[in-house]
Parts: sequence; structure tokens; C-alpha cells
Amino acid sequence: MQSKTPIDWSLYVVTDAGLSRGRSHLAVIEAAIAGGATVVQYREKAASTRQMIAEAQVLRELTRRAGVPLIVNDRLDVALAIDADGVHVGQDDMPAAVARRLIGPDKLLGVSAANLAEAMQAVQNGADYLGVGPVFATPTKPDAAPPIGMEGLREICRHVPLPVVAIGGINATNAAAAIAAGAQGIAVVSAVVAAEDVVAAARQLRALVAAARQRA
Amino acid sequence: MQSKTPIDWSLYVVTDAGLSRGRSHLAVIEAAIAGGATVVQYREKAASTRQMIAEAQVLRELTRRAGVPLIVNDRLDVALAIDADGVHVGQDDMPAAVARRLIGPDKLLGVSAANLAEAMQAVQNGADYLGVGPVFATPTKPDAAPPIGMEGLREICRHVPLPVVAIGGINATNAAAAIAAGAQGIAVVSAVVAAEDVVAAARQLRALVAAARQRA
Ligand code: NI
Repeated sequence: MQSKTPIDWSLYVVTDAGLSRGRSHLAVIEAAIAGGATVVQYREKAASTRQMIAEAQVLRELTRRAGVPLIVNDRLDVALAIDADGVHVGQDDMPAAVARRLIGPDKLLGVSAANLAEAMQAVQNGADYLGVGPVFATPTKPDAAPPIGMEGLREICRHVPLPVVAIGGINATNAAAAIAAGAQGIAVVSAVVAAEDVVAAARQLRALVAAARQRA
Repeated sequence: MQSKTPIDWSLYVVTDAGLSRGRSHLAVIEAAIAGGATVVQYREKAASTRQMIAEAQVLRELTRRAGVPLIVNDRLDVALAIDADGVHVGQDDMPAAVARRLIGPDKLLGVSAANLAEAMQAVQNGADYLGVGPVFATPTKPDAAPPIGMEGLREICRHVPLPVVAIGGINATNAAAAIAAGAQGIAVVSAVVAAEDVVAAARQLRALVAAARQRA
């Protein structure tokens, strides 16, 4: 995957070992890509560094074959070890400007923003895209900032000159609204990785995003 | 701190927030250096990446002023972010060969070894020094490998062409024996950071190592 070629942000799927019904990351992400996932993020907070690298390496090989960018959440060391296409940092992670300096200009840098000030700061710090939210409250991240709603999402998209991926409680009932609010794509965790039929869940979301983009 | 200049491995002090009696890393490490610590390792497993970088940055400024090398345990991302002098990896951390590739030839690479096979592999993988142990059982790392004793330490030191730092239950009662077994220095956690008088504890250990080296 060549970085900084135009990325299709439509359906950005984030791993979660705890929500995957005992299925491996490989099985879940293979199905998600078969259903139309356009970006994959490896997110893991509890495993050892050795285990993270082993898991992410499996996804690296899969996503490279599929031509889908792979981004690592928080752990720039893991991202570098497996030659990920980028790293995504939140407000508790490495400062974005430091991450940009360490990954260089060619890797993707994503930054989480929960309000307009964080979004503007992320632009200054060299982000390539923003994960904006939580749009809605979500049990996946109980420590997250207060939800910003579709209006908050719309306000940030209006002001930010970067692709925005909407995150936090996004599913088939609100994916189209997120795109209508200005997001380039949707980031989902449980809506895909916890689905009984991962392929079908991804396919439905991808189709909803595609239809909404045509209307936008 | 210029890396790869000869390092004095005599007294290698590892941070532990939980054992520091509520004192800051800055206070503890400042005292340890005043007492004669020759190397400092920042070790933290629970904090956010943002917090680790902030804490390690404080130690970076302190150790740079003192001319003492600062090594970061496990987290190569944190090591790079603060421009540490090196990184130390255990068997659950990033593979040593990957760490060497990512930090380049000039930064220090330390590797933990619990037996001769791991020690030899670490030499192959480009380690600059080894942390060998646990020599004795220790409550600091309940998940550690079985203790190797002074004889195990001696055997590894005899065969390894790199500086060895003895770790695991090392304190004033056995520091001299570790040096006599062939270690270049001792790595300590609680023997220094949990001491009521950190300066005095470090000073005593440093003196014991110096005396044992003169006899060795
Ligand atoms: Ni032998």
C-alpha cells in the first residue's frame, strides 16, 4: 500500500478482540474486507508488545494483499515494526506533532478530535485525517468524551480541511446521516466486528455510505 | 549523552511508580543519581502513552544534565519520542532484531535474558548489553522466569561477549557476589526506589560494586 495515495475512507473498521465473539482478528478482518471495508485499524490496549506485533503482522499481510491501508492505534512502535500505513493517536496518546516527526511525511497520521479546538490543533500538528466523535455514546469506550451528535460532527466537518471519519455509535441507522453531515466515511467497531455475519454487516454499511455520498 | 561511548553499568536503577512511596520519579531518580546511579531505566506498564512520554521527558532532562544514560523499557515509541539513549526489551516485548532495525546502530539496545540460549540469541540480534536474571525471586515481577542463582549468572557471563547487568532480587547483601560472578553492574528496582533514604541506598550499592570490581 503506497501511503498518501488518495484513500477511500468510506468504511473504516477498527479491531476489538473483546467484541469479536471469539473469532480471530484475521477471520473478522478478512470478512470485513470481503464486505467492503476500505481502511483497517488495529486497536489493542491490553496485550504485550510482542503479541501486538504478531497480531498486527497477520493483518499487515492480509491488508497488503487486499490493497487496504492498515493503521495502528496509539502504538507507533507497533506501527513501525510491521510497516503499517499509518498510526492513529488520541488525546491520551503520543502528541500528534511528535508522531508526525517520528513517522515522517509519508505515513498516514490520524488524530481523534472531540471538538473543534482539538480538530484545528490536529490540522496544525500534521494530521492526514481526523476521527471525529464520539458522535453518539458507545459502550466500547466508556471513558470517551461527551457525544457531539450529528450537529457537532457537521460543525467540525464544515471547518476542517481534512477528511473526517465519524466515530462513536455509528451503525446502519445513522451512517447515511454521518455522510450527509460532511464525513468522508464512518469508523465502526461493534457494528462490524461484533456482527454475526461480518461480510453482510460491512456490505450494508459500505452501500449506505456509497448511496449517501451520491446524494451529498 | 552520546550513545555507544563506554557506559558505566555499575548501578542501573529502574523506576517503579508503585514502589516509590508516593515520591515522584523526578525526586527518586534525582536522589539515585546523587547517590551514584550510573544508568537509569524508565519502566512503566500501566499509564497512557501521553503520560509515559511526559514522565520520561522529565527524566530525559534530568539525566541529560547529569550525563547519565536513560533507557526506556519496552516502549520504543516512548524512547523515540523523548530521544532516550536506548531501549530495553524483554522476551514479551518487541523482538530485539526489530528494535535494533528501528532504533538504528547508535542507540543502546538492552535485552533481558533468563538463560544462555536467550543470551546468545540477544547477542545475534544486536544487543549492546544484557539484563540477566532473575538472579533471585522478586516480588516486583511475579511473572518472571525461574531464578537462575549466582551460578546461572556466572555461566552466562562466562559465555557472553557483552556487558551483563545482573537483575532480580539484587541488593546490598548480594551485589558484590553478582560482580564476582562476572556482571559489569547490578540493576535494581526496590533496593533503591523503595528505600527510605534513596541517596544512601544508591551510595552503598555503588560502593559495593566498586569494591567488588577492584577485587574481580
Ligand atoms: Ni558453560
